[in-house]
Amino acid sequence: MVETGNPAANALFLEDLHAGQRFSSGPHTIDEAQIKEFAAQFDPQPFHLDGEAAKATLFGGLAASGWHTAAITMKLLVESGLPLGGGIIGSGGEISWPRPTRPGDTLTVFSEIEDVTPSRSRPDRGMIRVRNETRNQHGEIVQILIAKLVVPRHSAASSAPRDAVPHPAES
Amino acid sequence: MVETGNPAANALFLEDLHAGQRFSSGPHTIDEAQIKEFAAQFDPQPFHLDGEAAKATLFGGLAASGWHTAAITMKLLVESGLPLGGGIIGSGGEISWPRPTRPGDTLTVFSEIEDVTPSRSRPDRGMIRVRNETRNQHGEIVQILIAKLVVPRHSAASSAPRDAVPHPAES
Repeated sequence: MVETGNPAANALFLEDLHAGQRFSSGPHTIDEAQIKEFAAQFDPQPFHLDGEAAKATLFGGLAASGWHTAAITMKLLVESGLPLGGGIIGSGGEISWPRPTRPGDTLTVFSEIEDVTPSRSRPDRGMIRVRNETRNQHGEIVQILIAKLVVPRHSAASSAPRDAVPHPAES
Repeated sequence: MVETGNPAANALFLEDLHAGQRFSSGPHTIDEAQIKEFAAQFDPQPFHLDGEAAKATLFGGLAASGWHTAAITMKLLVESGLPLGGGIIGSGGEISWPRPTRPGDTLTVFSEIEDVTPSRSRPDRGMIRVRNETRNQHGEIVQILIAKLVVPRHSAASSAPRDAVPHPAES
């Protein structure tokens, strides 16, 4: 489990990141009430709302909405998984749900930086690509999210104004 | 706006779908309270929680979590956007957020079937690829989701048992 402590103290910026770096989040346990509450608001389908009705469906029993798994993954990344100085700001990515999240599952997110690309037009920032595997307590993958994130440089966070005129990169 | 009525009456199955078919959802208006409530639970970062703090960030003001936009998109698809007989069951897809969702935005989802592929191993179902554009009241795209969905055939819904032994396709 990643040490969280003071977020500012261990915050990482673009210069601190490289392909192959790995992180892991704390746990989140999901229960039937959470699954039904999320589904009632955002994904009101029988397999997410009603355990009995779910038995006759493709899921074979109550399952969390994939978007609920995605939302919990984000919570875990923000709270403990990815200690990024500028916060976790995604422009998009690829998502898949190889198996459902079930009531009682304890989810943890395992992240690996796949790529770090400084911006050509904006010297105060860059993009990273991160593979995030959300696993249940059996180690089974319930979601894979390949996310593209915007990450500022140290200098941008400490002194450079937003939308500054381009200038040579620091290092 | 798509007519909803009795979902069973206008439900579409694999045989009913073809590339180029278009659908649109009803509207959902998001407010500051919804944005902050979702963020507090799933994406607790300053630009989603605090309008003042958000001004100094990349977003320049309060913005909804991308996962909130995704969850509202799912709600709109389920309630009115995609009248699929087997429900909306996604295996994954590609997602991007070209611009933020803001307090007061009214979102609508415009969907187009891009591809229909019968399953080779499971004659009772197939996969479709659907492009879903979530737009605000100005027609600006706040999310693009290219979703891969599992869709049953008519026959599977009416008579075939689940996990039936493969048999020749009906048509």
